[in-house]
Amino acid sequence: MKFVIDMMGGDHGVETTIGAVKEFLKLHDDVYFYCVGNVECLSPLEGLDRVTIVPSIEVLKMDVDPMEAMHKKDSSLNIAMETYLKENCDCLVSAGSTGALVSEGVFKIKRMAGIKRPCLVSPFPTVIKGKNFVCADLGANTENTSENLLQFAKITSIFYRIAYNCENPKVYLLNNGTEEEKGNNLMKETYQLLKNDPSINFKGNMEAREPLNGECDVLITDGFTGNIFLKSTEGACKVMSNLIKRSFKTNFMTKIGYLFAKKGFKDMSETMDYKSTGGAMLLGVNGLLIKAHGSSDVRTFVSSLKIGYRLSKNDIINKIKENL
Amino acid sequence: MKFVIDMMGGDHGVETTIGAVKEFLKLHDDVYFYCVGNVECLSPLEGLDRVTIVPSIEVLKMDVDPMEAMHKKDSSLNIAMETYLKENCDCLVSAGSTGALVSEGVFKIKRMAGIKRPCLVSPFPTVIKGKNFVCADLGANTENTSENLLQFAKITSIFYRIAYNCENPKVYLLNNGTEEEKGNNLMKETYQLLKNDPSINFKGNMEAREPLNGECDVLITDGFTGNIFLKSTEGACKVMSNLIKRSFKTNFMTKIGYLFAKKGFKDMSETMDYKSTGGAMLLGVNGLLIKAHGSSDVRTFVSSLKIGYRLSKNDIINKIKENL
Repeated sequence: MKFVIDMMGGDHGVETTIGAVKEFLKLHDDVYFYCVGNVECLSPLEGLDRVTIVPSIEVLKMDVDPMEAMHKKDSSLNIAMETYLKENCDCLVSAGSTGALVSEGVFKIKRMAGIKRPCLVSPFPTVIKGKNFVCADLGANTENTSENLLQFAKITSIFYRIAYNCENPKVYLLNNGTEEEKGNNLMKETYQLLKNDPSINFKGNMEAREPLNGECDVLITDGFTGNIFLKSTEGACKVMSNLIKRSFKTNFMTKIGYLFAKKGFKDMSETMDYKSTGGAMLLGVNGLLIKAHGSSDVRTFVSSLKIGYRLSKNDIINKIKENL
Repeated sequence: MKFVIDMMGGDHGVETTIGAVKEFLKLHDDVYFYCVGNVECLSPLEGLDRVTIVPSIEVLKMDVDPMEAMHKKDSSLNIAMETYLKENCDCLVSAGSTGALVSEGVFKIKRMAGIKRPCLVSPFPTVIKGKNFVCADLGANTENTSENLLQFAKITSIFYRIAYNCENPKVYLLNNGTEEEKGNNLMKETYQLLKNDPSINFKGNMEAREPLNGECDVLITDGFTGNIFLKSTEGACKVMSNLIKRSFKTNFMTKIGYLFAKKGFKDMSETMDYKSTGGAMLLGVNGLLIKAHGSSDVRTFVSSLKIGYRLSKNDIINKIKENL
């Protein structure tokens, strides 16, 4: 299996990616890495078995304009895309700019036949142990039509079926109320399209406080709202987790309390750990492109590599194409 | 001070509102209640000092169509609005349908001069003890223009200044990235309007994972996105809280751990307790209309009454009008 990694992307660049590649090499002996980046920075990888260093010069900023990114031909992301095609790779992973990954992905790897726009799809944990749902679109687009959302629902259902081995995934539309007539114009239109498409197991609207409870398999929304949903949820979980850590430090008794409660606290943290499910996939292009979290640490980046590994093993791209 | 209460609204109706009214009567001796609802249901309030029971017949469903609600003249909400005007009340509280409250509020209580649309504003807790921020619009509207959002920012800044005694509230726009050019078309347009209005202390875009950290005073968004933000945050906090409670119950040791950690856990729960900050205000109409959470229990409904009490004491409506 051949991975190509944009080693320079993300808030922490090589500090994260080098450690992650090394760790992943130990986990799997059937993986080969093309590591794209500044040669000096990548020296810790020199001489390693199953690693080829591919030199690049420029590093795209996290807030680069996607159109500008396309013109920076020597960037690590651009060279990674070219390496993906040239070496016939199975998976590309980058923690860099989402906008750049989407625009380069569409431009270089191309959309699947019939797909108007790709969408960013990511798994979320739920209170049911081991159960994830996926949400699309998490921000590949900032404006969507109801036809786009219908297509996201179709392709994400196929993705969920294959990736999670679930015969008939339950699809919900993220909305401001559960009744059919709820929502802004986009959601009202999308509701009708989803309801009338027999290929989708559409179950109706879902309010934003519900998805983590585990009833939903596929949650459909536009890219802007998806971004708000993802980050609100992340932010609230992080705040709750920090608050409880802080409150345990109040005095001697609470510190003792923490020692006893540690196990329980760890269970909770693991259930809602976004880092362990980390990595969004750009669904709808002719290749497996994984967007790792911009603030990825080694563990999060390894999670993204794991997702890539599992999906590649599953031959996900070809299976989606067959099913479209 | 005269309160009028829609006793029948909310998921739990009189089960909640009767207890809340009784409790509030004990807390303040300068409050007089007009309790609107089905006379049989309100018998526990009969004969109480400082309570007048105002009979109504129909009860609006939580998912009632706002236009339909306007025609149900005998509903508890409708009669409450009329009582508000007739008795020259200071505050109206309802846990019923948001849509009905907004449409009746605009129709009966009327918008303030120059205000095109009212917005729903609610305080949120933050990790900084005692610090709240307010978010507008939380769902009075499902479609907004950038001009609407500019007006929300103006009126909510005035509200925050008076209600929280804060000279120059920091205003942020909820968006999918911090850079100026981020967002869908609505947010891009709104950014420019906010930036160029000298009456607003505009600090830029804020991503959805940030507001709970306490930097922001006023968070501006459209009604649809605001609803998603509110409910995602609520949902995630609730799930985290339940998960940790569950994990403490795992075995004997974790149960002991809970005994020691209880205090810390309580601290956290209180910091992020939406029930204690509960109650959204319909800002931009000529009256103090408070929307209590639909699923309010007695404690939550009392919180809404407290908000109403504090804002009335502050003469908030007249002060906003003077400042507009």
